[in-house]
Amino acid sequence: MKIVRFRWGSQAVYGVLEGETIYSLEGEPFGEFRRGQEKFPLRDVRLLAPVQPSKVVAVGQNYHGPLDEPLLFLKSSTAVTGPLEPIVYPSISKDVVLGPELAAIIKRPARNVSVEEAWGCVLGYACANDVTARDLYEKDHRRPRGKTFDTFCPLGPYIETELDPGNLAIRSRVNGQLKQDDSTSKMQFSVAELIHHFSKVVTLLPGDVLLTGSPGTAPIHPGDTVEIEIQGLGVLRNPVVAGP
Amino acid sequence: MKIVRFRWGSQAVYGVLEGETIYSLEGEPFGEFRRGQEKFPLRDVRLLAPVQPSKVVAVGQNYHGPLDEPLLFLKSSTAVTGPLEPIVYPSISKDVVLGPELAAIIKRPARNVSVEEAWGCVLGYACANDVTARDLYEKDHRRPRGKTFDTFCPLGPYIETELDPGNLAIRSRVNGQLKQDDSTSKMQFSVAELIHHFSKVVTLLPGDVLLTGSPGTAPIHPGDTVEIEIQGLGVLRNPVVAGP
Repeated sequence: MKIVRFRWGSQAVYGVLEGETIYSLEGEPFGEFRRGQEKFPLRDVRLLAPVQPSKVVAVGQNYHGPLDEPLLFLKSSTAVTGPLEPIVYPSISKDVVLGPELAAIIKRPARNVSVEEAWGCVLGYACANDVTARDLYEKDHRRPRGKTFDTFCPLGPYIETELDPGNLAIRSRVNGQLKQDDSTSKMQFSVAELIHHFSKVVTLLPGDVLLTGSPGTAPIHPGDTVEIEIQGLGVLRNPVVAGP
Repeated sequence: MKIVRFRWGSQAVYGVLEGETIYSLEGEPFGEFRRGQEKFPLRDVRLLAPVQPSKVVAVGQNYHGPLDEPLLFLKSSTAVTGPLEPIVYPSISKDVVLGPELAAIIKRPARNVSVEEAWGCVLGYACANDVTARDLYEKDHRRPRGKTFDTFCPLGPYIETELDPGNLAIRSRVNGQLKQDDSTSKMQFSVAELIHHFSKVVTLLPGDVLLTGSPGTAPIHPGDTVEIEIQGLGVLRNPVVAGP
């Protein structure tokens, strides 16, 4: 099932995407839910980031280890933005890069969970872009400023609830030009292993986003259009605009 | 005015503290509010952290500069805990320290605000403890794991809305023994300067917590009782317990 979130009037509502039609979602994505009967044409709505998380937990170097344990970092929830929304390039940076990442969306609270239990804590998966102002990140010695600017975590276009994340093609493009063409099979720590490790540190809450690492980066600039594509998860497309 | 948040039945409610009495709060703390008529004896309620923020934004080395700009770091909202709640000492660390900090609580959204505008974005101030697993923080090269364990951000006991934060005595104690005795006048960047700088990176939202830096640290251990005391902001007291 493909779960979307979209603006309808003044509200943000969840729906179920089938082809070019969004059906209403009865219940709520972090509990019991099913497809409803009400229909909305996809072309008439503006998709939002499929969740508004309380936090974004991410992992460094998961495609470039080996590491003895996963490296946790955080992005602020205000970094999350939706499909087609602009990535705002801060004027104080000269080196902003994209990073294609598989995002796992948390379904139920996870605290000190085993690897086996961790799979049951996942609602589904989505494309994400771990945007980084690399110069600021290095200047601050890996403190999170360069990772957490508003709009530095595009997410979407939908959450797929039925997918094995173990071996998916993951790609990025800038202005249509391929920058990464890799596979989630190269992650050192699996989604469940990451949840296991990170849930020893922070309680993961329903709607929280786990970013699982990037196979590579590519420079982006104001005026570019960037795309993250993951097999089975569609294409997450965002323009880049110059910030104040 | 002293704003508290407390458990009443199954709900978390805001109140106004006067002496040993909590009055109901009419309205809500991030909009218009006033003291109501309903009374609750302080001794009968369990105080919670005075806010549940969407994020905790903090500054490194603000008492130990000079820096050319403030160093932003993040703690997860799940790190926030209330007065008298245990600080859980992770079994994988051997070097956990306290850090007494003045917390500013955000009243209205702050994005790209000037220093002058920043003062109007503050609801009030509270005591906070920036607990850090220093060995993990160094092992991870300042990525936030060592800063963001659940319970690593005690906050409270109340928010004081009428206070000049510029020159307040700030102290910490472990088992009654004084560890820091300093003044917020030694901060390099003021509260408003921090909001100005950080609001260029992240939108600060109502209820968000800004930690303004620590004048020093002190080791803590399971079994200890730790206190943060700031002039005009009461005493924030927490026991330390061994984690799983």
